[in-house]
Amino acid sequence: MNQSLPQLLHDLKHHLLFLSSTVEDAVAKVVQALVQRDSRLAREVVAADAEIDNMEVRIEGECQQILALHQPVASDLRFVVATLKINNDLERMGDLAKKIGKNVSYLCGVSPTSANVDFREIAEKARLMVKRSMDAFVNSDVELARQVLADDDEVDSLKDELYEELRNTIRNHPDELDSLLKLYSVTRNLERLGDMATHIAEEVIFIIEGDIVRHNAGA
Amino acid sequence: MNQSLPQLLHDLKHHLLFLSSTVEDAVAKVVQALVQRDSRLAREVVAADAEIDNMEVRIEGECQQILALHQPVASDLRFVVATLKINNDLERMGDLAKKIGKNVSYLCGVSPTSANVDFREIAEKARLMVKRSMDAFVNSDVELARQVLADDDEVDSLKDELYEELRNTIRNHPDELDSLLKLYSVTRNLERLGDMATHIAEEVIFIIEGDIVRHNAGA
Repeated sequence: MNQSLPQLLHDLKHHLLFLSSTVEDAVAKVVQALVQRDSRLAREVVAADAEIDNMEVRIEGECQQILALHQPVASDLRFVVATLKINNDLERMGDLAKKIGKNVSYLCGVSPTSANVDFREIAEKARLMVKRSMDAFVNSDVELARQVLADDDEVDSLKDELYEELRNTIRNHPDELDSLLKLYSVTRNLERLGDMATHIAEEVIFIIEGDIVRHNAGA
Repeated sequence: MNQSLPQLLHDLKHHLLFLSSTVEDAVAKVVQALVQRDSRLAREVVAADAEIDNMEVRIEGECQQILALHQPVASDLRFVVATLKINNDLERMGDLAKKIGKNVSYLCGVSPTSANVDFREIAEKARLMVKRSMDAFVNSDVELARQVLADDDEVDSLKDELYEELRNTIRNHPDELDSLLKLYSVTRNLERLGDMATHIAEEVIFIIEGDIVRHNAGA
């Protein structure tokens, strides 16, 4: 309670980055589980989501305490408000990693499909988008935020390629439909991770360009 | 600037409810467009998402102003913090309605599939979940919030039935695969609307039960 506002904001930033690195870690692990058909690792990702949920609750509590006891204004207030939203987004990203984990668990228990799909590239790009969007946020780096928007186009292209291969495999191997639809879902959820990182990047651009607009208006 | 905090909070609640009713309206319309194969109505829903985005930005601005100028505490602060999160969720729900609208536009331009699916029930239940979760929030009605959690189980069951029918149709009519996958996506996005309403309901329960815990701790 005796900490200064700058110290509390510093800690908040640190905790938010720790949450995002935990989410990144879940994304990396769940795709490793898929590639290596490692159901134990997939279950580990599913179980680890509870800790992500706890972190989110703690960070929201910190935000509320800062708002109630320190009444931040201007850029500090915008940082806390953005943290509340991004914190929520990160928790949802954790949910996506968990959903993928459940599908990977299922896929580890059945025969591999005939689809020629490799999820490593899309997953690595999506993970990097999460990292970059968070780095852009904590460093107010609008260029890096714009890079995330460009990354999203690449993730969308990779998703389209994977979808195409999965659709072709469904046509040629309809007996593998259930597994192929799970892979379809994995693809979509990796793309959604990228979408959520894009939302964060857009938020960063909005905050920074909003600033510029306000500065100009006040000049 | 001269308005009192109670008046500003009252207005904020009103604006949030207007946003949620706009989202509900989009959900109802997009499914009407699907059932009636009305591509104009589908495009209308897609276009209307921009207004939902604008509302979200305005509501967030109101929250920031209230935090900066009126420094709310206790339940008022929790209301503003929850509004920031729910406002974000409602904007995402608008995105889902827009996504469905794009799929419906596509489906209106191709032959109907052989799938025996009717989306009216799941859509109406999902729409009602949005309404109930928001009513639970603004009235602090924990019973209604719990009803939303029960509704979500029904939506999940309906989704499973639709998925099953769509999978069977893919097996029997692989030539309709593209359209059937769009219907799969519509089903999933309606279920996700229900999931997001569930998040709001869980938030309401957390706020109210958090209160109880705090009251007990202070007794």
